[in-house]
Amino acid sequence: MQRNGHRSCVLWFTGLSGSGKSTIANLVDQLLFERGAHTYLLDGDNVRHGLCAGPNLLAPVYGSEFAERFGLGFGQQDREENIRRVGAVTELLANAGLICLTAFVSPYRKDRDLVRAWVERQNGPGTFLEVFVNTPLEVCMKRDPKGLYQQAIEGKIKNFTGISDPYEAPDSPELELRTAECSAEQCASQVLSYLTVQGILP
Amino acid sequence: MQRNGHRSCVLWFTGLSGSGKSTIANLVDQLLFERGAHTYLLDGDNVRHGLCAGPNLLAPVYGSEFAERFGLGFGQQDREENIRRVGAVTELLANAGLICLTAFVSPYRKDRDLVRAWVERQNGPGTFLEVFVNTPLEVCMKRDPKGLYQQAIEGKIKNFTGISDPYEAPDSPELELRTAECSAEQCASQVLSYLTVQGILP
Repeated sequence: MQRNGHRSCVLWFTGLSGSGKSTIANLVDQLLFERGAHTYLLDGDNVRHGLCAGPNLLAPVYGSEFAERFGLGFGQQDREENIRRVGAVTELLANAGLICLTAFVSPYRKDRDLVRAWVERQNGPGTFLEVFVNTPLEVCMKRDPKGLYQQAIEGKIKNFTGISDPYEAPDSPELELRTAECSAEQCASQVLSYLTVQGILP
Repeated sequence: MQRNGHRSCVLWFTGLSGSGKSTIANLVDQLLFERGAHTYLLDGDNVRHGLCAGPNLLAPVYGSEFAERFGLGFGQQDREENIRRVGAVTELLANAGLICLTAFVSPYRKDRDLVRAWVERQNGPGTFLEVFVNTPLEVCMKRDPKGLYQQAIEGKIKNFTGISDPYEAPDSPELELRTAECSAEQCASQVLSYLTVQGILP
């Protein structure tokens, strides 16, 4: 959609908890906004209570059988469906002409590749940009902004990516950001440069 | 979001199959586009293969257990979840600054009211506009553009709204369009006028 003065795409940030995905995605969103771009950022905050609500939020409204079936917890199937729903929405947002940013751990390669295939099938090649926020586990554990790694190590959180669950790094992401070596601002500006080089931004 | 030169909202078209929802929603979308508005239209065509895909589409990719759980068929629970997912996406699209149009039968008052509550909680009062496409059943059956009523009468389609399943008309829709008395163009222009009066369009 040329109306917006830029091409649309999906910027899919993936990386460990504490890697800096949300921080950088928010910075990129802000920089894009300042350049007059039309953007939307999807993260846990805006899907957890709606599109990907858990059983406990759905049960009071829709009943427990419905909530058990469609509500998303932390099992493998639930995580797959979480990424599938988010991916389907990114496809629609890109189709609406927006630059859509997402910030989810999205640990499984297969799930990310399925989103890529779906987005590109609907919006054309080069519209799905995988941004690997490559921060060493030790650095993420040291940052531990929400104290989640500590809880995972103590066994209080099961299936925690990086501790008790695998993180499958992208094979060939469009972008790789090394937050242990560069500031969040430097990483964000790397993303903007890439969008310009790719002709997504004018 | 004032960047777009208009306010954002959800225009939720509801009515029987064959009532003219899609025709009018597409016309409104076109008129809004011509006025420079940023819009997105959600209907069966763009959610059926992605966000609200059925079990048969999901099974080859995700396996049959996953497909049975999350794939949407035509049962009551499936229809509820279909409208819930679409509603959650309209909330995000309105939040992104767009005028979001939807064209789904959405026969149950409770489901529409839940979407209304959710959209207005996130985007503010007056952002959910229910457009009742009020076409008498006899007229819809006579039009029967896809031959669905005929199949429903012959019992080949179960749970068909208007024949074997109820349609619960809105109690107090923001707009009521009577397609038996007005042309689709007249109905569309009625919607545009309403958006202007409400200050959504400048």
